[in-house]
Amino acid sequence: MMRMGWGDLGAFGEPSKETPNLDQMAAEGMLFPNFYTANPLCSPSRAALLTGRLPIRNGFYTTNAHARNAYTPQEIVGGIPDSELLLPELLKKAGYVNKIIGKWHLGHRPQFHPLKHGFDEWFGSPNCHFGPYNNKDFPNLPVYRDQEMIGRYYEDFRIDLKTGEANLTQIYLKEALDFINRQQASQQPFFLYWAIDATHAPVYASKDFLGTSQRGLYGDAVREIDDSIGKILKHLQKLGISKNTFVFFTSDNGAALISAPKQGGSNGPFLCGKQTTFEGGMREPAIAWWPGRIPAGQVSHQLGSVMDLFTTSLSLAGLQLPDDRQIDGIDLLPAVLQGKLIDRPIFYYRGNEMMAVRVGLYKAHYWTWSNSWEEYSKGIDFCPGQNISGVTTHTQEEHTLLPLLFHLGRDPGEKYPIRFASPEYEAVIKRISPIVDQHKATLVPGEPQLNICDRAVMNWAPPGCEKLGKCLEPPTSNPTNPAASAGFSCATPEQLTAADFNSLH
Amino acid sequence: MMRMGWGDLGAFGEPSKETPNLDQMAAEGMLFPNFYTANPLCSPSRAALLTGRLPIRNGFYTTNAHARNAYTPQEIVGGIPDSELLLPELLKKAGYVNKIIGKWHLGHRPQFHPLKHGFDEWFGSPNCHFGPYNNKDFPNLPVYRDQEMIGRYYEDFRIDLKTGEANLTQIYLKEALDFINRQQASQQPFFLYWAIDATHAPVYASKDFLGTSQRGLYGDAVREIDDSIGKILKHLQKLGISKNTFVFFTSDNGAALISAPKQGGSNGPFLCGKQTTFEGGMREPAIAWWPGRIPAGQVSHQLGSVMDLFTTSLSLAGLQLPDDRQIDGIDLLPAVLQGKLIDRPIFYYRGNEMMAVRVGLYKAHYWTWSNSWEEYSKGIDFCPGQNISGVTTHTQEEHTLLPLLFHLGRDPGEKYPIRFASPEYEAVIKRISPIVDQHKATLVPGEPQLNICDRAVMNWAPPGCEKLGKCLEPPTSNPTNPAASAGFSCATPEQLTAADFNSLH
Repeated sequence: MMRMGWGDLGAFGEPSKETPNLDQMAAEGMLFPNFYTANPLCSPSRAALLTGRLPIRNGFYTTNAHARNAYTPQEIVGGIPDSELLLPELLKKAGYVNKIIGKWHLGHRPQFHPLKHGFDEWFGSPNCHFGPYNNKDFPNLPVYRDQEMIGRYYEDFRIDLKTGEANLTQIYLKEALDFINRQQASQQPFFLYWAIDATHAPVYASKDFLGTSQRGLYGDAVREIDDSIGKILKHLQKLGISKNTFVFFTSDNGAALISAPKQGGSNGPFLCGKQTTFEGGMREPAIAWWPGRIPAGQVSHQLGSVMDLFTTSLSLAGLQLPDDRQIDGIDLLPAVLQGKLIDRPIFYYRGNEMMAVRVGLYKAHYWTWSNSWEEYSKGIDFCPGQNISGVTTHTQEEHTLLPLLFHLGRDPGEKYPIRFASPEYEAVIKRISPIVDQHKATLVPGEPQLNICDRAVMNWAPPGCEKLGKCLEPPTSNPTNPAASAGFSCATPEQLTAADFNSLH
Repeated sequence: MMRMGWGDLGAFGEPSKETPNLDQMAAEGMLFPNFYTANPLCSPSRAALLTGRLPIRNGFYTTNAHARNAYTPQEIVGGIPDSELLLPELLKKAGYVNKIIGKWHLGHRPQFHPLKHGFDEWFGSPNCHFGPYNNKDFPNLPVYRDQEMIGRYYEDFRIDLKTGEANLTQIYLKEALDFINRQQASQQPFFLYWAIDATHAPVYASKDFLGTSQRGLYGDAVREIDDSIGKILKHLQKLGISKNTFVFFTSDNGAALISAPKQGGSNGPFLCGKQTTFEGGMREPAIAWWPGRIPAGQVSHQLGSVMDLFTTSLSLAGLQLPDDRQIDGIDLLPAVLQGKLIDRPIFYYRGNEMMAVRVGLYKAHYWTWSNSWEEYSKGIDFCPGQNISGVTTHTQEEHTLLPLLFHLGRDPGEKYPIRFASPEYEAVIKRISPIVDQHKATLVPGEPQLNICDRAVMNWAPPGCEKLGKCLEPPTSNPTNPAASAGFSCATPEQLTAADFNSLH
């Protein structure tokens, strides 16, 4: 799970073809070309993965502004509520040992930490690897082992912003192999959530990979991730546990085109990128691998979602789904093991708004928006080089009475809305409308967790800071309820520039 | 060889993944993600393939207007000059039997026919399968067997424009299998040029394939072609001659986005389409297959060209290159058999102008143009939904003093010109300039063949028409030298509408 675009893999058409290990994983397993995240931004996507629920249900959204994505910068007060049941919490009941390696992103205050929500081990950071900060206005972000911070980015864990050099992916790889070794030795079933972040700006790669890609630094990072995944899969085979281990590769949102060309990725033939509910923002590369169980070289056109990994994992572990709440993820095993196609819609949310829905090959937009004219005029562009009249709108356009309809088979790039008066339009809308009506009628939104910011809650003095002598003095608490701007919960549009976007999102 | 986009193959990232046979061909052979045509329009591309020479040399261009592509509609007076040496003419010297199946496109008057230029057999049409015509203003296009017409499109060879049904690909497949059978039986070396056209508007498929694709009619046509290629390859294997047969799959130009979404294809992540010298117009899907000689599953980043198939074929046949003329194609065998990378530039021509050049991963545009404002205002759009300021220009923009430079690895979509003042720009231009200077200084343009039109030369009375009772009365000769408009040699811009483009190009 990482930020990578659909089009970043050779198997999905990246021209440089620099992902031999992922391509091999696909050749040995099953490729999902129609796999989606639940929100085109990192935190809500990851919250959806681990809860099997839409962010609108699990609280990973903001009501500070309409249709604004929100995440967990270090000013955020909220995080994953205790009332949510996370995948590792449930897997524990079946004896699984659970580890997260990498970016958590479901809240950085101690009560939100992975070990409070079912994980047994953690190596990584609660927030994104932004920085360096001055430890006065903003503290450098901490890196944790389990419940205690063991250092900070840019101090103890270096990222050279000039060269892009950092050996973090190598550390994450070693953590993964060590964890797998230990579980294999003790014959423990395990769940490893390898949530790396090298392709997220600021993009980085270790020395051996720097300069090795045709695609620049971003490609170097992709190559290192690809190499690491190859090593993990080979390790599972070497240990003789690959036939008992279900591995799934996917991404938390589409490539961030705002970071292109140096730190952005590719969404292949799809429209726009991260932050948007166009295909480029929400369709993800996805591969299932399970030698001996999944026949090699399969392609499944099942409409899938990161939330399905919750349900599928419970199914694999022989556990029941929680019956006291709505779960949005479906069990993919019939698709994976028997090649079945399960009819289900995909809902495209942006913040608190259902923007679009996909049913079969059709996608209906109930709202369109790329970003505001105000942001656009500052150089913030989620759809660089792309402009589809009436589709990539810079004002929030409501189409609920007459949704914009696309056929994603004939028109994967969402360029040609189907004519309103056509028989095709009428027949399809008649099929989609009741699905949307039912979704909206039965939806019970969770309490929004990403509304309130407070600089006092930042990572000034994380657990473990005393031992390291790295505690910082927090400022006076001053909770704010800011107008959410694109991709932020804690900044106003006035504070944003394109440069911020390149470094911060 | 056909009109298909880079992104139309599963192996190149088409999301529907509907080309299992071509993907298998790639898995058993070598994929070329950096393979180019010599001109983004059909006739000059095919002339380049068969002569190994740029259209500016072999005469397949017009000087009626600057940077206008031209082809061979049935009004064209010209065709491939006798002074050109075509691949089959040369292969004959090594005992090869040569057949073309499908669209010829190098001139329809008898002196230009395939059998006058080295082919032993022909089944197909001299022009594109446009129509139906009324046989008064325009004659329906003929279909030939060898030197004689055996019928006309829409009369004897049906294409149902409403349903898209036509069984032509099945006929072309049978022609191919029969030819291969005969050569195998007589132990003859052979050259088969399978130049089908089902994905060219008006797109068609046979009954068994209609409605089978997620991508609409265009996808049905792709599926039928894919299926046919699978059958040809299996047939070679069944006959036991696959180890002696070099097979190459490629396309004559990028997908025609003007025909999208119903009859267009996909150029994947690349900019614009057919008619343009952006990557979408000129980068082609390409696969080499030769079991036992080409190791399976290879990817070559060799910059390749359709013109290389001329040189490579001669090399395979043990023949020398003509030494009395400039040949632009290179021998790809070192790339194919030994994985070598040969340093060579790619020149992007549009009509009579060198628009751009690629050297390594860099591409420099000396001219930019999508199409004219006049055409654009009529709905003719070569870059639908794409608009890159200063790049997809609607006026012909010259950049010879300061070329627009792109890094196609970091930026395959040609969205981010490299800054003029940067050290990278200066170093790269220093490397590219002498290559361009030498090309221009030594270029001897051929006599342009596509300048003069005359309705009297149309397919009124092709050889063989008497036997069939299908001779028509030509009008009085009235040669014209029209202002070339986009993609035409014989129409003025005033005569063109978007509808023409959908049916005619």
